[in-house]
Amino acid sequence: MRLAIKFNKIFLTSFCLAQLYFLTGNSVVGQTSVPQWDLFELILEGPEGGNPFIGTEFGAVFYNDNDSLWTEGFYDGNGEYKIRFMPEEQGEWTYKTFSNKPSLDGKEGKLICTEAKRGTHGPVMVRDQYHFQYPDGTPFYPFGTTVYEWPFQSMESQLKTLETLKSSPFNKVRFLAVPPYKERYIEEGKLKIEEFPFEGTSRENWDFSRFNPEYFKKLDQCVKWLYENGIQADLILFRPYDDGRWGFDEMDQETNKRFVSYMMARYAAFSNIWWSLANENSFMKSLTDEEWDELFQLVEEKDSYGHLRSIHNAGNIYDYGKPWVSHISLQYYNAVRVPGVSPLLRDLFRKPVVHDEINYEGNITRRWGRISAEELTFRFWNAYIGGGYATHGESYKKNPWISTGGKLIGESPERIAFLKSLVQESPVDWNPVDQYYELNLTGKGGEFYMFYFGKESPSSWKVILPKRGLEEGDRFKVEIIDTWNMTIDPVEGIFEMVPLEGDGYKFRDKDGREIQLPGKPYLALRIKKVAEKPFYP
Amino acid sequence: MRLAIKFNKIFLTSFCLAQLYFLTGNSVVGQTSVPQWDLFELILEGPEGGNPFIGTEFGAVFYNDNDSLWTEGFYDGNGEYKIRFMPEEQGEWTYKTFSNKPSLDGKEGKLICTEAKRGTHGPVMVRDQYHFQYPDGTPFYPFGTTVYEWPFQSMESQLKTLETLKSSPFNKVRFLAVPPYKERYIEEGKLKIEEFPFEGTSRENWDFSRFNPEYFKKLDQCVKWLYENGIQADLILFRPYDDGRWGFDEMDQETNKRFVSYMMARYAAFSNIWWSLANENSFMKSLTDEEWDELFQLVEEKDSYGHLRSIHNAGNIYDYGKPWVSHISLQYYNAVRVPGVSPLLRDLFRKPVVHDEINYEGNITRRWGRISAEELTFRFWNAYIGGGYATHGESYKKNPWISTGGKLIGESPERIAFLKSLVQESPVDWNPVDQYYELNLTGKGGEFYMFYFGKESPSSWKVILPKRGLEEGDRFKVEIIDTWNMTIDPVEGIFEMVPLEGDGYKFRDKDGREIQLPGKPYLALRIKKVAEKPFYP
Repeated sequence: MRLAIKFNKIFLTSFCLAQLYFLTGNSVVGQTSVPQWDLFELILEGPEGGNPFIGTEFGAVFYNDNDSLWTEGFYDGNGEYKIRFMPEEQGEWTYKTFSNKPSLDGKEGKLICTEAKRGTHGPVMVRDQYHFQYPDGTPFYPFGTTVYEWPFQSMESQLKTLETLKSSPFNKVRFLAVPPYKERYIEEGKLKIEEFPFEGTSRENWDFSRFNPEYFKKLDQCVKWLYENGIQADLILFRPYDDGRWGFDEMDQETNKRFVSYMMARYAAFSNIWWSLANENSFMKSLTDEEWDELFQLVEEKDSYGHLRSIHNAGNIYDYGKPWVSHISLQYYNAVRVPGVSPLLRDLFRKPVVHDEINYEGNITRRWGRISAEELTFRFWNAYIGGGYATHGESYKKNPWISTGGKLIGESPERIAFLKSLVQESPVDWNPVDQYYELNLTGKGGEFYMFYFGKESPSSWKVILPKRGLEEGDRFKVEIIDTWNMTIDPVEGIFEMVPLEGDGYKFRDKDGREIQLPGKPYLALRIKKVAEKPFYP
Repeated sequence: MRLAIKFNKIFLTSFCLAQLYFLTGNSVVGQTSVPQWDLFELILEGPEGGNPFIGTEFGAVFYNDNDSLWTEGFYDGNGEYKIRFMPEEQGEWTYKTFSNKPSLDGKEGKLICTEAKRGTHGPVMVRDQYHFQYPDGTPFYPFGTTVYEWPFQSMESQLKTLETLKSSPFNKVRFLAVPPYKERYIEEGKLKIEEFPFEGTSRENWDFSRFNPEYFKKLDQCVKWLYENGIQADLILFRPYDDGRWGFDEMDQETNKRFVSYMMARYAAFSNIWWSLANENSFMKSLTDEEWDELFQLVEEKDSYGHLRSIHNAGNIYDYGKPWVSHISLQYYNAVRVPGVSPLLRDLFRKPVVHDEINYEGNITRRWGRISAEELTFRFWNAYIGGGYATHGESYKKNPWISTGGKLIGESPERIAFLKSLVQESPVDWNPVDQYYELNLTGKGGEFYMFYFGKESPSSWKVILPKRGLEEGDRFKVEIIDTWNMTIDPVEGIFEMVPLEGDGYKFRDKDGREIQLPGKPYLALRIKKVAEKPFYP
């Protein structure tokens, strides 16, 4: 064991988040600390010969007084075998390695998990059936964007993308773990030919039994940059975009499974990971639903942290009801052209709904990439009013953000930021209110309401609310929101609610007032309960 | 065996559709014929003592050169054990009974299955993933109605309901196999107390181990009347409407399973049966999804004919993706307020979509029973334009059709009949055309289109169609349909299609024409390809 030596070397070349651990023989010679939910990486030296990716089984048990967790390691080239671990609880953890190779077996050590770094909240999980949160209880409201190929760009371009993301509303990025076939990736100066996920230089000589660690080190960097900036990495494991060239979409199932296992060993310890089994999975004609089941179950088995798992469709939609799917990741453009569809999706699958492709703001020839900023903003609103979430994309001819990243030039991100602020400021989650009868109303009966009028251009609105949660005498303030111009105008007065005569299901303003609206599209109403008046005796 | 004697008796009192069979000892002494898909009933005499519903296992194998089928029998009181069989193939069939009771075991015989009676087409099955057909290839387009309690009314009332159905557009009726708790059913003169599914007179003394054959004979009659008139019986096995009184919604799972088995033995041989596992199943709080799975699987196992199977929801929606669910039977009112939802449901579950409760035309206090005829017709159109189907209901204070049947007084049935005629006349099934992008268009690209404008009031329509299936030069006739006033007005001229410049996804009329529309709601356009002109040399 020469981990002490390795340590220095790795420290210079790697981006490992946590300190490494020193071992002499099989015993501890030093101690390290790792902030909660950060990445701890153990490096072991092992055999370089043969094929280290096949037949070498190794991993470690990490345990404390309450918990124990098994995680597999991965080979990272140059005789380095790595085991990554994300401590979810503060305090002392002990680990012990196991392997069928003596040099990787029986190493033991300890680490201290310290307080989380400011801004770090741990992996996002499902909350209240339809929403998300961090393990420390902080809600997470996804506002995603799409930059499929940013890991395969130059570092300069990657850093520019990162800067754009940091000043955007987007807190989740969908991107590919395996590059799509594009002419530019085989030209000199863009992506070097050796930097593919597998050893080899072309379809003729891929060695699917050997991963290319240099490729994955770059991908690691992208995940880590997002982590450091509090952005979720919605990492897409498989994709069909091969144009008959590289064959990454037609690997046999054994290779697919080995790839999944490697990805789990390598990335599951990043707290900001979401797994997307595939983009447009049904375009990968060679894989059956049963094979997708198998890959999903493998992710479930190998990811010791239970990160979120979904799959993104084209044509045939994978069954979101299956137990290993944590949330819906839907591509169905018409589903966000009215707010009423997301509630149905929630009720059908009892899981959070993320509309992960809803057409892109842009002007390219393909119709999925040429909707207006108004239309994309409208679709976002429909998703959130329906109790779901949505993901942005931009595809201007001169600025293919969804492919390569870089900068954003569209007009929707600003409006999405405005929507995000409304969601974050809201005293309640946005859940449909009376979802079988109301098409455009979210909030919580009796407390908070958001009506969205979409493309209608109402010039007035009679103050009437569904009765659920209301009591006679409840009083509300109303604000008129222009979702496109991003203005919030309070309506004068307080509205006191009484039952609507002869209806049985609604309450109306006691004075029957009607609110004047500016008669244009994309209006919303925010209605908040007024706190009880203080009692002056 | 005294079947010869039994025959005469039964012939007078029973409504059995097929001739009975004579047996002496265990051998055939006569021969009978049964039209294809009709009901053949074999009556065996067996023990009357003890509890014939428990522990008596019996059934028969029916076989011909190609096929064999096992069906269980049921006890029908008075020492009569019956086995019902629907022959699906013409020619000679042989049967042999098996039982753990010697008197019911080893009876053999033959029957000749003759040509189907005029108007009889066999059991409805799924066709082309999203539609239905009879086994002889005749399409079946469901236009259902709801008369939950008609089997529990007086025969006079039942016959009136039947007459109404015969002159209505409705070819499927949803109704309950077990009565809901209503005060009127325990008053003298309405439903006699002894005519409950189980022996006993009240919750205090039901004997759930003994069925009441007299109750089921009346239910048989209702199913048969529908059969004779070509109407599907969408028979609802379980329902929650007990108001804490009878406890039929809280039977233990063993009783539920015995009930299902009895229903299968008794009704599966009726060719017009559809199984609805429940109405508003999630209101039966005592049953878990796993128990529903078990009941579904029991239906699948015991119904040798594979009749259609679904379940109708309230709140929590059962997973339609499960393999034993043949079609969606959804209660989600907002899902038919736009046409775009049915395509999504089709794509999510890859099964036919039947919107089996979409609110009722009427004027009762409850909001689910007070929509206008215009609104119900609008919702029907949305369902069919989306490639789904819908079910009607009427609930006027003075005419509770959905409960007791009788006559129809609403204005929607006539419009539903009009829609039905359009569906039946159509040269293609109504499937969404370009369902990710078009919200209100059904038909088949290049052949037939139906646009539906719902509550919009367009005063013109530019002749533009999605390109799928179109070739330059294809020519179309257009008709303007007023779906409320039931008029069809041809538009003058023939429209020849050319690609829409700069779009890539649409074709337009060569001359850029715009069709004038009457600027009112509920309009549709029917667009049919004009046959190629004959070639005159």
